[in-house]
Amino acid sequence: MIVAMKTDATIEEIERVMDRIAGYDLKALRLPGGERTAIGIASGIPSGLRETLTEVLASMKGVDHVTQVSRAYKLASREFHSTDSVVRIKGVALGGGEVVVAAGPCAIESRDQLFAAAEAVKAHGGKILRGGAFKPRTSPYAFQGLGIDGLKILKEAGDKFGLVTVTEVLDQHDLDVIMDHADILQIGARNMQNYPLLIAVGKTSHPVVIKRGPSATIDEWLLAAEYVLAGGNENVILCERGVHPLERGHTRYTLDLSAVPVAKSLSHLPVIVDPSHACGTWRFIASMSKAAIAAGADGLIMEIHPDPAGALCDGAQSLRLNAFGQLMNELGAVARAVGRTIA
Amino acid sequence: MIVAMKTDATIEEIERVMDRIAGYDLKALRLPGGERTAIGIASGIPSGLRETLTEVLASMKGVDHVTQVSRAYKLASREFHSTDSVVRIKGVALGGGEVVVAAGPCAIESRDQLFAAAEAVKAHGGKILRGGAFKPRTSPYAFQGLGIDGLKILKEAGDKFGLVTVTEVLDQHDLDVIMDHADILQIGARNMQNYPLLIAVGKTSHPVVIKRGPSATIDEWLLAAEYVLAGGNENVILCERGVHPLERGHTRYTLDLSAVPVAKSLSHLPVIVDPSHACGTWRFIASMSKAAIAAGADGLIMEIHPDPAGALCDGAQSLRLNAFGQLMNELGAVARAVGRTIA
Amino acid sequence: MIVAMKTDATIEEIERVMDRIAGYDLKALRLPGGERTAIGIASGIPSGLRETLTEVLASMKGVDHVTQVSRAYKLASREFHSTDSVVRIKGVALGGGEVVVAAGPCAIESRDQLFAAAEAVKAHGGKILRGGAFKPRTSPYAFQGLGIDGLKILKEAGDKFGLVTVTEVLDQHDLDVIMDHADILQIGARNMQNYPLLIAVGKTSHPVVIKRGPSATIDEWLLAAEYVLAGGNENVILCERGVHPLERGHTRYTLDLSAVPVAKSLSHLPVIVDPSHACGTWRFIASMSKAAIAAGADGLIMEIHPDPAGALCDGAQSLRLNAFGQLMNELGAVARAVGRTIA
Amino acid sequence: MIVAMKTDATIEEIERVMDRIAGYDLKALRLPGGERTAIGIASGIPSGLRETLTEVLASMKGVDHVTQVSRAYKLASREFHSTDSVVRIKGVALGGGEVVVAAGPCAIESRDQLFAAAEAVKAHGGKILRGGAFKPRTSPYAFQGLGIDGLKILKEAGDKFGLVTVTEVLDQHDLDVIMDHADILQIGARNMQNYPLLIAVGKTSHPVVIKRGPSATIDEWLLAAEYVLAGGNENVILCERGVHPLERGHTRYTLDLSAVPVAKSLSHLPVIVDPSHACGTWRFIASMSKAAIAAGADGLIMEIHPDPAGALCDGAQSLRLNAFGQLMNELGAVARAVGRTIA
Repeated sequence: MIVAMKTDATIEEIERVMDRIAGYDLKALRLPGGERTAIGIASGIPSGLRETLTEVLASMKGVDHVTQVSRAYKLASREFHSTDSVVRIKGVALGGGEVVVAAGPCAIESRDQLFAAAEAVKAHGGKILRGGAFKPRTSPYAFQGLGIDGLKILKEAGDKFGLVTVTEVLDQHDLDVIMDHADILQIGARNMQNYPLLIAVGKTSHPVVIKRGPSATIDEWLLAAEYVLAGGNENVILCERGVHPLERGHTRYTLDLSAVPVAKSLSHLPVIVDPSHACGTWRFIASMSKAAIAAGADGLIMEIHPDPAGALCDGAQSLRLNAFGQLMNELGAVARAVGRTIA
Repeated sequence: MIVAMKTDATIEEIERVMDRIAGYDLKALRLPGGERTAIGIASGIPSGLRETLTEVLASMKGVDHVTQVSRAYKLASREFHSTDSVVRIKGVALGGGEVVVAAGPCAIESRDQLFAAAEAVKAHGGKILRGGAFKPRTSPYAFQGLGIDGLKILKEAGDKFGLVTVTEVLDQHDLDVIMDHADILQIGARNMQNYPLLIAVGKTSHPVVIKRGPSATIDEWLLAAEYVLAGGNENVILCERGVHPLERGHTRYTLDLSAVPVAKSLSHLPVIVDPSHACGTWRFIASMSKAAIAAGADGLIMEIHPDPAGALCDGAQSLRLNAFGQLMNELGAVARAVGRTIA
Repeated sequence: MIVAMKTDATIEEIERVMDRIAGYDLKALRLPGGERTAIGIASGIPSGLRETLTEVLASMKGVDHVTQVSRAYKLASREFHSTDSVVRIKGVALGGGEVVVAAGPCAIESRDQLFAAAEAVKAHGGKILRGGAFKPRTSPYAFQGLGIDGLKILKEAGDKFGLVTVTEVLDQHDLDVIMDHADILQIGARNMQNYPLLIAVGKTSHPVVIKRGPSATIDEWLLAAEYVLAGGNENVILCERGVHPLERGHTRYTLDLSAVPVAKSLSHLPVIVDPSHACGTWRFIASMSKAAIAAGADGLIMEIHPDPAGALCDGAQSLRLNAFGQLMNELGAVARAVGRTIA
Repeated sequence: MIVAMKTDATIEEIERVMDRIAGYDLKALRLPGGERTAIGIASGIPSGLRETLTEVLASMKGVDHVTQVSRAYKLASREFHSTDSVVRIKGVALGGGEVVVAAGPCAIESRDQLFAAAEAVKAHGGKILRGGAFKPRTSPYAFQGLGIDGLKILKEAGDKFGLVTVTEVLDQHDLDVIMDHADILQIGARNMQNYPLLIAVGKTSHPVVIKRGPSATIDEWLLAAEYVLAGGNENVILCERGVHPLERGHTRYTLDLSAVPVAKSLSHLPVIVDPSHACGTWRFIASMSKAAIAAGADGLIMEIHPDPAGALCDGAQSLRLNAFGQLMNELGAVARAVGRTIA
């Protein structure tokens, strides 16, 4: 941590800051510059102290600003876990050499609908079936999901087609029933900083996909992962799904594909990409899926639907099943071009 | 709702869209233009149908894009409730002629700390005491609040100093205990789209402050309010607290004061402003508080602390108690300049 | 164009708007809805009238808002030019089946430096040599480029190695000398809305790369292209180079790769990608370059330098020459995977 | 400047960085931490070296990132010029105790139009007449301004009504003619990083308003001012006019009023606010103008028009003349509430 003093800070102010640091049993080093003095802390700072210390120093007289040198997350950091983590679920490995594709409808609407999607996922080499039972909807008047009935259909489809399943958890009090029915939990972008939910998921050992919030920095995203890891759950998968866009006219969000190599350089966790919510239209799914794999993503999660025009949720951004089949072929070629495989 | 066809849409595609609209018992009108045909829906669209219909039409062949003419929220809209709503709590009225100030520490740390703050709030004309018992912290290693012990202190302080109290609810399952101890619920910015929480709060009649999420549009914010209103709880207060900034170097967020007149033009709900979290430093609180009142805010919620440098949470953005006293005097002058009062 | 009236608009207000539209010899159609009336304009609107008409109607009594159905650009639009445009320069074709790579140093520093870079570009299959002579620098104290001396070196290097050359133009009054020395003009992101410069370039027939401004929407970017096209210069190449990021900690900008398929769906113009300025560090160039090609980019423009640590400009984001060579091999594989070639 | 090494940096890598710093005759200090070593530079760094040094160090092996302690601008900084600068033009003082209001039409359309506006400005206590002769328009098909004929009308109106005049300069080659006709130059938001223009204006002593670019950080804005100051022109006025918004539905841009106290704390230059372009509609001008003054702005620049519905440019965001008169009264009250005056 570096404390930059104001250019007109007095010697007394500088010494008071150094004394304060010393009061925490930390070593302070003076760095006189051309314009101002900075004070470096030349000791390790316990992680429980970091935030408080920053605020204490920032509010002292003569201090201009405080800069962090170290990162606030540890367990999520590649610096403390240098090799790639691989999350394994029923024989599917996320974060290894294979690019894993999850697909399915936004919302589970019926047994027929989900089974048709599951059959297509299986047929074309997808490994994971997605489907929402509890839907977070911006409008209270929109379809909110089938709830537990949806979970039952999901489990049945996963079992029948031999697919791993993933579904969103909105409320920590639904965790048990969701874990009984689905293999992977998803924490949605709007819940990325729902701390009670993160803490509850951290107490389980269920694999969990953490979607990046639309205005979350990468550090905030990794801190959300840190919440789950700090609880003891190591099966964390990061998912980029688009950040707040410059305009909402052509896409819903801006898919930040640089988040893939950035997150993978900072963290050992697998990183997957959801092109569907970012694009908001099926038209750009194929190109952005290819780009995600080329950028180094460990997997994709995308929306497909047997009848997009009749969908109760996010129909416009869902691929038809035959378009999904064709895309899977094309994705295989891109994966091979970057030294990976799909299915 | 307007459906803009592609410039090369065929007559059959146009007719198919018109038929589809007619299939929902809605009237479609053709609007031929210089370059493309648009199709307007010349009937009221039931709110439960709006989202589905948009997606159905957007995914049809020949359609370029679909544009909304009406807004997705109703109960929150001024168009359906033209006069200002006033939320009344124990004699304090939010949304009327008086500008109401809420102040207190970010986190309740001790009885002494909160009582010192409460005494200052009361002495200087504040009406509401704020204090966090359950704290949402970006880092899992930061102080997470005193929990129920904090709530008890809050209630005791409110009672002793005759102040209305407000505290954040993170988890709908804490609602009962929080409502037993605090007069106003706060839904934090990170939870603005935590729908189970919004729905749970909507089933109570407890007043609730809904903070705008850092990447939420004003329409999304009003839709969050709509969730609570749709449940039957009319005591909703909107709170602007800063949107995702261009940089985090000088302020934490960008306080969007235009959100005050915009929200008040679109909605009848009271709108307050939290300058503390947006600024992230006490240095800009005074000027932004004055600006908020000048912009038409119905109230302020700000952080004050008897000893900012020793605070366990957000010390750097807290005003000292005497600075708060001086600011309250200055705010009174600004309020009067725009035809309102404080205290 | 659709005019949405307020819900409480009077019949007189509605009629006044319809009369006003009729006054421009346009046909107005009434679209009564459940909550409000909308008025559609059922005729082609001359492009010179569009903006004025929007403002006139938006400021009329009883009007809530005005929505555009058509786009403001025409010559840049795929709707008016359905096949891909190919820009040809000395045997290099941008926008065809081949992915074209431009590379070179941020700033031309010396003959030795540029020639070393040019040799590497040529050796590894790049077709275009980039190099700045007039540098836009955020700080007035940073190196501003060699000016005309730099241009001479660029021309010499292009001639010697048989490479097409590209360099940035900051000032329309430098156009002649730059066109004498370089094959392609580049309009930088900071100048995307420098209209005198766009107009001046539009009067030439020199190929021009228009970089997207960091806060420009895709429509604003296409309108910048429209300025050049409207002047008669058809040789326009679009370049995505990153938009304003959520944070500047890990990358300089957020590379918006969805802009590639979006721009190519809206426009017939070639679209290339600059991963260097967006990433701000060489570490992510390889993955983002591959992603750009997978997303459908027609080319790349990237920074390479014989000695990044000694560079006078943007050293940290430049690839070493041997890393560039290796990357070109890898890019070839990705290009083939999406049915294209490099070199 | 602080160089944070990677956690696994070797002793050799650390020493190589320290040697490199020493090679520039700067003193390096090692700051060992719990996780990583940082290296502080404990000497003043010449401003011409800062950027290069940052890039050199950032690209060295073992380096994680480089952090700035000092700011890149000097002449614009309050640290080097602690008292407020006051820019004086023909008896009008910007940056002193008085809040100065500039008003006028977006574009000069005719003598009658500008004279009507000028008369209103004068009558209601405005000091500066604004009016565009060369208009930057997003669309090439929109009205581009009257050019020199507009300048002549502006000068005539300024002379007749005893008003200081301001107009935008788009091209440095128009500087002479504009300086002959107008008292203050305006550099528009889209040109904030048009360096040839900034340099040209820096060589004059004409007062200049620099609008903040819609995606410019405050530091970038101050660096734009530094360009002009570094040329010798001290008469620089900063103008906040809105940053890239979360959505463009309700306002054009997000007026960042916190930029006023932030810029005034970092810099000694006067700061004014343009509410018209940010809001994009006259409806929110009154509240945002009051808020700007309450936030500490030294002035306002706003659009007024005798006949907004007939305006050729930005009619929807222009106030009618009588609304302007009423607003001026209200602004006086707010100014007095914060210890300042208008007119």
